[in-house]
Amino acid sequence: MLETLIVKKTKPKKLRSPVLVTGLPGIGLIGQVVGRYMVEELKAKKIANLVSPHFPHQVFMTKRGGIRIIKNSFYLFKGKKRDLVFLLGDIQAMSSPGQYEVSGKIIDYCKELRIKEVITVGGYSTGQMVEEKRLFGVATSDKLRKKFGKMGVIFGEAKGSIVGAAGLLPAIAKINGLDGSCIMGETHGSYIDTAAAKQIVVLLSKYLGVPVNLKRLNERAKESQKILKKVQEEVQNAMEQQEEATSRNVSYIR
Amino acid sequence: MLETLIVKKTKPKKLRSPVLVTGLPGIGLIGQVVGRYMVEELKAKKIANLVSPHFPHQVFMTKRGGIRIIKNSFYLFKGKKRDLVFLLGDIQAMSSPGQYEVSGKIIDYCKELRIKEVITVGGYSTGQMVEEKRLFGVATSDKLRKKFGKMGVIFGEAKGSIVGAAGLLPAIAKINGLDGSCIMGETHGSYIDTAAAKQIVVLLSKYLGVPVNLKRLNERAKESQKILKKVQEEVQNAMEQQEEATSRNVSYIR
Amino acid sequence: MLETLIVKKTKPKKLRSPVLVTGLPGIGLIGQVVGRYMVEELKAKKIANLVSPHFPHQVFMTKRGGIRIIKNSFYLFKGKKRDLVFLLGDIQAMSSPGQYEVSGKIIDYCKELRIKEVITVGGYSTGQMVEEKRLFGVATSDKLRKKFGKMGVIFGEAKGSIVGAAGLLPAIAKINGLDGSCIMGETHGSYIDTAAAKQIVVLLSKYLGVPVNLKRLNERAKESQKILKKVQEEVQNAMEQQEEATSRNVSYIR
Amino acid sequence: MLETLIVKKTKPKKLRSPVLVTGLPGIGLIGQVVGRYMVEELKAKKIANLVSPHFPHQVFMTKRGGIRIIKNSFYLFKGKKRDLVFLLGDIQAMSSPGQYEVSGKIIDYCKELRIKEVITVGGYSTGQMVEEKRLFGVATSDKLRKKFGKMGVIFGEAKGSIVGAAGLLPAIAKINGLDGSCIMGETHGSYIDTAAAKQIVVLLSKYLGVPVNLKRLNERAKESQKILKKVQEEVQNAMEQQEEATSRNVSYIR
Repeated sequence: MLETLIVKKTKPKKLRSPVLVTGLPGIGLIGQVVGRYMVEELKAKKIANLVSPHFPHQVFMTKRGGIRIIKNSFYLFKGKKRDLVFLLGDIQAMSSPGQYEVSGKIIDYCKELRIKEVITVGGYSTGQMVEEKRLFGVATSDKLRKKFGKMGVIFGEAKGSIVGAAGLLPAIAKINGLDGSCIMGETHGSYIDTAAAKQIVVLLSKYLGVPVNLKRLNERAKESQKILKKVQEEVQNAMEQQEEATSRNVSYIR
Repeated sequence: MLETLIVKKTKPKKLRSPVLVTGLPGIGLIGQVVGRYMVEELKAKKIANLVSPHFPHQVFMTKRGGIRIIKNSFYLFKGKKRDLVFLLGDIQAMSSPGQYEVSGKIIDYCKELRIKEVITVGGYSTGQMVEEKRLFGVATSDKLRKKFGKMGVIFGEAKGSIVGAAGLLPAIAKINGLDGSCIMGETHGSYIDTAAAKQIVVLLSKYLGVPVNLKRLNERAKESQKILKKVQEEVQNAMEQQEEATSRNVSYIR
Repeated sequence: MLETLIVKKTKPKKLRSPVLVTGLPGIGLIGQVVGRYMVEELKAKKIANLVSPHFPHQVFMTKRGGIRIIKNSFYLFKGKKRDLVFLLGDIQAMSSPGQYEVSGKIIDYCKELRIKEVITVGGYSTGQMVEEKRLFGVATSDKLRKKFGKMGVIFGEAKGSIVGAAGLLPAIAKINGLDGSCIMGETHGSYIDTAAAKQIVVLLSKYLGVPVNLKRLNERAKESQKILKKVQEEVQNAMEQQEEATSRNVSYIR
Repeated sequence: MLETLIVKKTKPKKLRSPVLVTGLPGIGLIGQVVGRYMVEELKAKKIANLVSPHFPHQVFMTKRGGIRIIKNSFYLFKGKKRDLVFLLGDIQAMSSPGQYEVSGKIIDYCKELRIKEVITVGGYSTGQMVEEKRLFGVATSDKLRKKFGKMGVIFGEAKGSIVGAAGLLPAIAKINGLDGSCIMGETHGSYIDTAAAKQIVVLLSKYLGVPVNLKRLNERAKESQKILKKVQEEVQNAMEQQEEATSRNVSYIR
């Protein structure tokens, strides 16, 4: 496996103005919570997995004695107006070249599915607790800024940079002739923020024309956090074992 | 050499339900001891070597003045029911992308040989000494879980993740339509565990339908350990020399 | 995105003895100030962007709510005698292999545009303050050394090595049959040097046969510095966040 | 430039049993001194350069105002019996994958020139001063061991591993059907060893059937050392500047 690979389970045909919505780990876990919740509520179906040499070289043992490779996954929901493709995953690529490779492969797959619009979801860390959480956005076109702006997303106020797939995906989308935006929930940054996630679910539900019930969000957010924490611990353990092994002279002889 | 390379010595034809069994270095040296012992007892013949840019850039000097590149090797045993291909080696790739590349090349080779099943052998480190050692397993299909389960392998109890080829090989096997499992001997983790290795040899001997005499296992395990230790020391020395050179301003000018 | 990519906005045809002039960040910010100033004064038009997996994996949020990927850009000025292509950018590749890849792609693009000459602009750090700043040069041919020499550029006195694109571009140009030179302004090295930049603008303006008004240079240099500083801070912040995340066990899970 | 590149100046035809002899930097500078001395004494002609993304991303300024990219070079000497190709260079690749890539490209070039034998020259560091210096060897075939053995080279006594091109080249040669050997002069290891170099020149001169006068070797060895030292300092300086820049927040913005 020399390159990031998208393993397709089915080849969906004739999607109606399909859009990609990503829910990858990041600030305040907002993207992941939003993505996972919508996939579960909408009962979206898995259509593909993404595996990559830029993910850690370890696999998880499942409760029933199976093997789970570290991966991202695509899910399809056939909506009334638009078809939605969600991208979920517990991890992002571990290096800059890896991040570019993975994002590029995702956009290639979008083009294959004739997706013309990419929405990433993230958090905008302010380091402060606020009561009224705002939604910030950046987008690759005036049209998107207008559409999201009308729904209350604030453009032009968030400052600085967006690290990882949440920023790279819309940027590489644009290079490939797709439109892209990143919707960020205002958040403290160091804990899981379900309030911000909820706001984004409401926004996307409206924007995408799909009804999403919010009542299970809090409990599911906890699950997301649990899963992510486990993944993090596993990866961390493996790294520590390897470091310890190195110090005991048994280094990369695993 | 831009990519991992499999150097074939012969092209075996028409293997009968061939299976790959790996014996690479890892926890408690179990995989390596099991693999090497079975290859020697069964007098399996070497059919290919694997060299990789992700192995250390050094070669070993042999006792008779030869050069041994760092490599993994494939051995073939023509069994009565099934043909067995073993993968042995003193080292695994040194980076995540390297691990994925090497595992991918191994599975490509399996497909070339029409291998449909991959079994990796490893250790499950508990940090404790136990009298009754258990065998844990993970597998990519119910069929395998059932088959190994009947022979006493415990599925669904081992927790956490498997680092390196022992985990990646069955996972990448699955992506390519092959079945895979990883059999782990319960072990303390910080010393060579011949008791656990013995149990796995007994299991595999039965599972694969080949008779393997156990009486030489203890002494051969010591040899395995000696070889691995030498490899580790050499690689470590080379790394230290390079570090020392760096500090003396002669850095990567080797 | 597996490789550095040049995204063309237009395909300029029949350029007249075109030359590439680079203005990338480096010692004393001289190259960047010179390049950006000439592009703005000459109102050169953007013809292509260069994006690379060897740039940091983050994007900038713009004031109007847009997304700016980290990139280098090519600008074309149709001169009376020669057509000039400028290369600007806030960053260079982050690793040696990345530097070679990016420089190679730039020279490939030069060949596509039938550019036969490459001029890079940099600073020659002396660690000293001098009143009379000299211009030093290196070049791949006697012809260039003669031409620049007549205009006061000193060849054969600068010692040591040139790091990054300022050195690699003319060197790789030569391998590909193009001529190349690097013009360096004598500078202290640790602050932005507009005096040195001014001298090089005067030189290039004469050498390339384009009139460039100098009066806005000082103020624009400040802008350049502001932009670069912002870029640096953003990249630095992202790196620190990632490091901090690593220490809090949330590592490459962004 | 995505890969190591061999830039050919001429395409030598019909070489007579050609052999590659390498003189790259390494222990005691022995290889480099031997190679450079033989090239100069035999007045071998440069036939190709090798540049690589795995070399440092910097160029040297020459005394006459030229640009020298970091490279290795091939030289051809048309002998009476055999044609000799020498490989010289101030540096080796900076990573394991880089070392494998460069060595692989060198062997590809050997095959193009129909070279069937590769001889690398290195030092065998004992950490001790000895009066009678021995020559140790490793080789890929009995034939070579016999031939060199008759001339006093000792096989089977040197222990451990050979790091870098001196070891990888004969090993990768063998994989490609070429013969290879590494001749090592016994040396203390931490200073330049012209006595050991002299012995190897005498050996190779006899083995290859070319007369080489030894009288200038001492003085030329000093030159070699001077050149290498300069290269090392430059690379080191560049690395330190980059590190310092990193600590001042201007990091990879060169």
